[in-house]
Amino acid sequence: MTEKNPLIFRTEVREEDIENVRSICISTGFFYDIEIPVAVELVEERLRSGLSSGYYFIFAEIGGKTVAYACYGPIAGTEGGFDLYWIVTYNDYRGQGIGNRLIEETHKAVRGMGGRFLVAETSTLEKYTPTRHFYDRAGYTVEARIDDFYKKGDGKVFFVKRF
Amino acid sequence: MTEKNPLIFRTEVREEDIENVRSICISTGFFYDIEIPVAVELVEERLRSGLSSGYYFIFAEIGGKTVAYACYGPIAGTEGGFDLYWIVTYNDYRGQGIGNRLIEETHKAVRGMGGRFLVAETSTLEKYTPTRHFYDRAGYTVEARIDDFYKKGDGKVFFVKRF
Repeated sequence: MTEKNPLIFRTEVREEDIENVRSICISTGFFYDIEIPVAVELVEERLRSGLSSGYYFIFAEIGGKTVAYACYGPIAGTEGGFDLYWIVTYNDYRGQGIGNRLIEETHKAVRGMGGRFLVAETSTLEKYTPTRHFYDRAGYTVEARIDDFYKKGDGKVFFVKRF
Repeated sequence: MTEKNPLIFRTEVREEDIENVRSICISTGFFYDIEIPVAVELVEERLRSGLSSGYYFIFAEIGGKTVAYACYGPIAGTEGGFDLYWIVTYNDYRGQGIGNRLIEETHKAVRGMGGRFLVAETSTLEKYTPTRHFYDRAGYTVEARIDDFYKKGDGKVFFVKRF
């Protein structure tokens, strides 16, 4: 990310984003093997069904390379509730504030659709401390928590950003 | 429900359950018009994809009539977490303890699959007080809550039954 190669956002979803999302997620070393196909599946579902899939994407590009992405969508049965399903930065591009700018762009998009709030679910494990700090800094609050959710000793926290 | 016509449970899902589920849900006068197709869709998805749909059903029958049903399924990404999606009794058959026996049967099935807990989400609205009491009596605890979730003034509570 330089003056010559600024960060650019793109909301159009392309066939090659299947591979982009796969390699971004793998690069982090953060997700379990079984989680990667879940991330990829949302791109495929979006390509198949368009916006009616309920999956919205924002891709962040630098010099033509897709370096981060966010996937979010309306929560069925709510007025203005949105889930933030995934927000991931390519490992080599972490620590440059790309995630912060991407989440801000996501908030802008959600507000633009009349969103009242965005929920990001994450784990209570030590490993996810950077993730929880990331949501903290982005103005999210832990509004709820279910202990021993993912497995014994691994709870789920609900970070909520209100608009 | 009499000695001659006892309550019978059935886990096999049939084509006619599309109509059974629709009429049970409509009979209660409890659900919004847009919620009924969501309930029905889970039956259709189950008929299409079998158990891999992730939707398990228990139907309660009296004298050959389907009078109540529960729909539940494993929560992806969890070890032994289950969602209780729907549990509904036909309006004319309420107040006879059918729901209590059905939820017990559901607990038995979840435990049999190695389930550690079951989550039932419901609304904080006055209208859902009987629903919340129902979960209370069945041994569920409110473990989490997100205010203004469904809409302003209408929060979501997470009732959790641990095994």
